Amino acid sequence: MVKQSILTLEQARWLDINNHPTPFVVYEQKWIEANMWRFYKAFDWVLNFQNYFAVKACPNPTILRILKNLWSWADCSSMWELVMSEICGLEWENIMFTSNNTHAAEFIKAHSMWAIINFDDIIHIPFYERQVWEMPEIACCRFNPGELKRGNDIIWKPTNAKYWMTREQIFEAYKMLRDKWVKRFWLHTMVASNELNPDYFIETAKILFELVKELEEKLWIIFEFVNLWGWIWIPYKPEQKEVDLERVSEWIRKEYKELIWETREKAIRIVMECGRMITGPYWQLVTKVQHVTEKYKNYVWVDASMQCLMRPALYWAYHHISVLWKENEPANQIYDVTWSLCENNDKFAIDRQLPEVKKWDYLVIHDAWAHWTAMWFNYNAKLRPAELLKTTDWEIKLIRRAENLQDYFSTVNWIDWFSI
Amino acid sequence: MVKQSILTLEQARWLDINNHPTPFVVYEQKWIEANMWRFYKAFDWVLNFQNYFAVKACPNPTILRILKNLWSWADCSSMWELVMSEICGLEWENIMFTSNNTHAAEFIKAHSMWAIINFDDIIHIPFYERQVWEMPEIACCRFNPGELKRGNDIIWKPTNAKYWMTREQIFEAYKMLRDKWVKRFWLHTMVASNELNPDYFIETAKILFELVKELEEKLWIIFEFVNLWGWIWIPYKPEQKEVDLERVSEWIRKEYKELIWETREKAIRIVMECGRMITGPYWQLVTKVQHVTEKYKNYVWVDASMQCLMRPALYWAYHHISVLWKENEPANQIYDVTWSLCENNDKFAIDRQLPEVKKWDYLVIHDAWAHWTAMWFNYNAKLRPAELLKTTDWEIKLIRRAENLQDYFSTVNWIDWFSI
Repeated sequence: MVKQSILTLEQARWLDINNHPTPFVVYEQKWIEANMWRFYKAFDWVLNFQNYFAVKACPNPTILRILKNLWSWADCSSMWELVMSEICGLEWENIMFTSNNTHAAEFIKAHSMWAIINFDDIIHIPFYERQVWEMPEIACCRFNPGELKRGNDIIWKPTNAKYWMTREQIFEAYKMLRDKWVKRFWLHTMVASNELNPDYFIETAKILFELVKELEEKLWIIFEFVNLWGWIWIPYKPEQKEVDLERVSEWIRKEYKELIWETREKAIRIVMECGRMITGPYWQLVTKVQHVTEKYKNYVWVDASMQCLMRPALYWAYHHISVLWKENEPANQIYDVTWSLCENNDKFAIDRQLPEVKKWDYLVIHDAWAHWTAMWFNYNAKLRPAELLKTTDWEIKLIRRAENLQDYFSTVNWIDWFSI
Repeated sequence: MVKQSILTLEQARWLDINNHPTPFVVYEQKWIEANMWRFYKAFDWVLNFQNYFAVKACPNPTILRILKNLWSWADCSSMWELVMSEICGLEWENIMFTSNNTHAAEFIKAHSMWAIINFDDIIHIPFYERQVWEMPEIACCRFNPGELKRGNDIIWKPTNAKYWMTREQIFEAYKMLRDKWVKRFWLHTMVASNELNPDYFIETAKILFELVKELEEKLWIIFEFVNLWGWIWIPYKPEQKEVDLERVSEWIRKEYKELIWETREKAIRIVMECGRMITGPYWQLVTKVQHVTEKYKNYVWVDASMQCLMRPALYWAYHHISVLWKENEPANQIYDVTWSLCENNDKFAIDRQLPEVKKWDYLVIHDAWAHWTAMWFNYNAKLRPAELLKTTDWEIKLIRRAENLQDYFSTVNWIDWFSI
């Protein structure tokens, strides 16, 4: 996949000099929209296909609002994610509340918004009833296939995951929900995380379709929806390919036809809960070179730090880097692209081939996907950067201002120092 | 080392119910003070021994102020750490400015405070002169011993570290400084990070003493201070022992005597820059059990998340856990102690032996050292907790309030949604 920069050198420099000093992040609305349409189009055979965007992936109200305009609803997992979604005009069946370790107040809030409740744990069901005093309109349970799936590096083996219910618990949970007079049922799993291999998704779909049938037969309930999965991986390296959504869709359709369509009177709707795939590739971190130096290795020092994007520091993840205006120059230099924190793993790239980089060059860090805005922090008293949106009208709008010193000190309680 | 809790069950419950809902962190002033005295006492043979506390390790002004009262100065590495230290009454030689990837404005600020400038890179020297228009009163360079030291798991091989100057650069740097009429010289290295093995520190000291002599002989300059190292490790597990400071001190004294005292007219002062060792063990995270459940494994769900303490999620670091009021009960249960984020590595402990844990029990997470308050973030729209100080008068004082929703949204720029 060719990695294109959202901004030109002139735009980046203009923004930097005028109102928004680097580093900052920029979203491209047009690309997000095109991506949503591609996604929805791939599944157009599904009656009312819907994505519940994982709010944690991009907790900026404006982005949630743009997604809402594209019929992408919200998957929330905490009190303030619920509140943020409410502000953006999402409620009722447009909210899925998927939380583990849930506080009573969170269930009460979700209930008051008539959200779909996605139970992570069987004990949450009586807990919900006790706290909320009634059951949700729509209830969903999260299935852990255990040994059925091998898992991957991020989520590990499903049997070690803190999430989801075991097979026995799933049956017990739906029985419990049925006996408490819940009428509308959904089913959810999300073992296929961070995957590029379509077979993995298809296998998960099949497990879920079979489980639906079994649950329906054994418990005499009818499922309305299955929530297939989230976290489709994105191609971080230029040589990687996107997940072929059309192929995935086609194969799921085949399974669906065989397992659901031909044996069941009513259709089952399918929803997903993708986050990374929706906004990840259309989100770029723009940073400026401060120094270029030589020690035991060659270093490019930029003005952003790992607190703007933790993936490389956490697990040496690859993020493509473009040098604005030098995209077509030969990448014949080798640099460590480093940041300014007092942590040696605060490096953005190690031994990366780039064109010759000079002081004041602008670097674009691609696919700086948005879970990581949610993980911004203030290590070394560095402040969190601004978020900009490039709208479909080619305007640049500030959707989150950069932090200032006042923000940094805002929670400090200045006690009387004479008393300590 | 016996792991003692700062609060009793009654105190924790009282705080939780009245003013400070869990999770919160609590510091014990008395222990921090006792620790500082132990540290200074171990090195009382050094003329004016001084620790420059790494501000990043605990960026709370009240803690910095307490340390200042104990003659522990500040090691800063960014603009706002300088400002925070200034607010706490630190300046002149009480500030060491150790920064890599430094912005011109940071050098200007440090210079205006008459701070000791610790150059990380040789090109920073002409950069400093160009930006500040004069040279610092005291200049220090950071030495990277390269192949001389093997490094460890955190900092890796020194030759791969982004920090410090090579041997050739160190000579060139001090020559440059001398020729620019700097009069007072310090020398710094910090390859021994996160160590419990005293030999490592002693070896580093020896390398530094020898380098001082060589630099003095070759360049005809006189060194005033050496900054030996920081980051002495702390014993996270009850069966581990603290670094034997007295022994380390004794051995350094031996090297000092041989290499400096007996061959040099003037004494060299020694300083250190410890952070973790000073506040780490006296900093505890208090959290309450929300649920106890069974899936494929047994889980204890607490109300803090990895955003309060990232070490276990980052590299499965061990932190000791006490269940208040059950310290003496047999640890005959095995739990994963988990938190509430939508990340499977958001676990505090895996397969940890604990006494039987019930809902509403209070857990104390020990040695939750303070770099990690600097790394607090807002993933899943979870808010950052409060910091409490237990003073020497046994009073509990709030030194940082918990975040609220207003803080969380404070930087959102609410653009006109009709226009997108």
